[in-house]
Amino acid sequence: MPEALKLYHAPASPNSRRVRMFLAEKDISLPLVSIDLAAGEQHGDAYRAINPRRVVPTLVLEDGTAIGEVLAIWRYLEEACPATPLLGTTPKDKALVTMWERRAELDGFAAVMEGVRNAAPRLAGRAIAGPHDYAQIPELVERSKRRVANFYSDMDARLAEVPCIAGENFSAADIMMGFSLTTMRYFLPYDLARCPNIVSYLARISRRPAYRRAMEKGDPGMTLLLT
Amino acid sequence: MPEALKLYHAPASPNSRRVRMFLAEKDISLPLVSIDLAAGEQHGDAYRAINPRRVVPTLVLEDGTAIGEVLAIWRYLEEACPATPLLGTTPKDKALVTMWERRAELDGFAAVMEGVRNAAPRLAGRAIAGPHDYAQIPELVERSKRRVANFYSDMDARLAEVPCIAGENFSAADIMMGFSLTTMRYFLPYDLARCPNIVSYLARISRRPAYRRAMEKGDPGMTLLLT
Repeated sequence: MPEALKLYHAPASPNSRRVRMFLAEKDISLPLVSIDLAAGEQHGDAYRAINPRRVVPTLVLEDGTAIGEVLAIWRYLEEACPATPLLGTTPKDKALVTMWERRAELDGFAAVMEGVRNAAPRLAGRAIAGPHDYAQIPELVERSKRRVANFYSDMDARLAEVPCIAGENFSAADIMMGFSLTTMRYFLPYDLARCPNIVSYLARISRRPAYRRAMEKGDPGMTLLLT
Repeated sequence: MPEALKLYHAPASPNSRRVRMFLAEKDISLPLVSIDLAAGEQHGDAYRAINPRRVVPTLVLEDGTAIGEVLAIWRYLEEACPATPLLGTTPKDKALVTMWERRAELDGFAAVMEGVRNAAPRLAGRAIAGPHDYAQIPELVERSKRRVANFYSDMDARLAEVPCIAGENFSAADIMMGFSLTTMRYFLPYDLARCPNIVSYLARISRRPAYRRAMEKGDPGMTLLLT
């Protein structure tokens, strides 16, 4: 692991948590710099010089290159620290992790966040993260609920067949899936009795050493249990 | 390249074209099976058994594993056929290709397709691709236009600084960027005089041998020139 990496993040941001959990699974630590989202620090000149998109997280490399986007940060960390691979080992596994990560993210996480961003009063005018302002569209809140319900059903069916979302082995796709499921549960409560496979899956991955370590360190928002 | 791969695609589908262009850049060929989207073949039992999400493309491996999602298919092909790398070679380049591919896709291609899917009468009730039906939301058509205009400005500024979207070298992020820009131009005409760097970038990547080969073969919709 290069010495001079630095991760800009926010303790409670779901995307930052995905990177911290990836680091925890690989048992590596990086210097962390907190950005105060509630105070709007991401919109200030200092952070915009690092990430013009004004979002966290950003990984800054030794030569000053700024890597935004969780998937890109994961890819860097996997290539720079290949021990404990989380993005698959064979061509087939790498493809399956990519596929299931994407479904967890776009059908799951993006679906619930669309509801959140179009509903929260504090995000009025900020319905899409990034450098441009977009007004909220109330119809997207209702659509988000339907998408989330479909996602729960689809993933419960998938998890009846496999122990981990991409197949037999734990991968970064499970980090995405865990956070997608708990984020949607937090914002849009759902009848857990209708998705027993999801409940047992989250209980299973919550027993992993990396999750326990994160919880012991008091890392906020790291719980995956649907309680 | 394993012998028994098979690519299910549709000649004019933008996502299928992204995979065919990736193959063309690597100068490899695969058995192609066409799915007739206009006739609804993707919704039939035969194709749903291959890809329950009912979308193209799908890469089927020798052992029958079906890989959906363009990024996952690209990842498989890059790992199985490492010659002529398109996803970067160093950890830093792999991360930058991932980051820029994602921006081209989510801020560009997804933004324009959101407008298309919410406007086209033949897609009524199918505003989101995949196994579930969602009604069109007219406000998204207007928002799509604003997102596309922002994308043009942002990418024109980026392309004033670098020859290829992820930096010095051509990569799969340029395949995504090329198709994002030409798709949006097709659906939402835009004043090219305001984005000279995009115009010269597309002219430059259209002169690549792989594009010329695709054009000579008469592969439909492979032109990247904004004419």
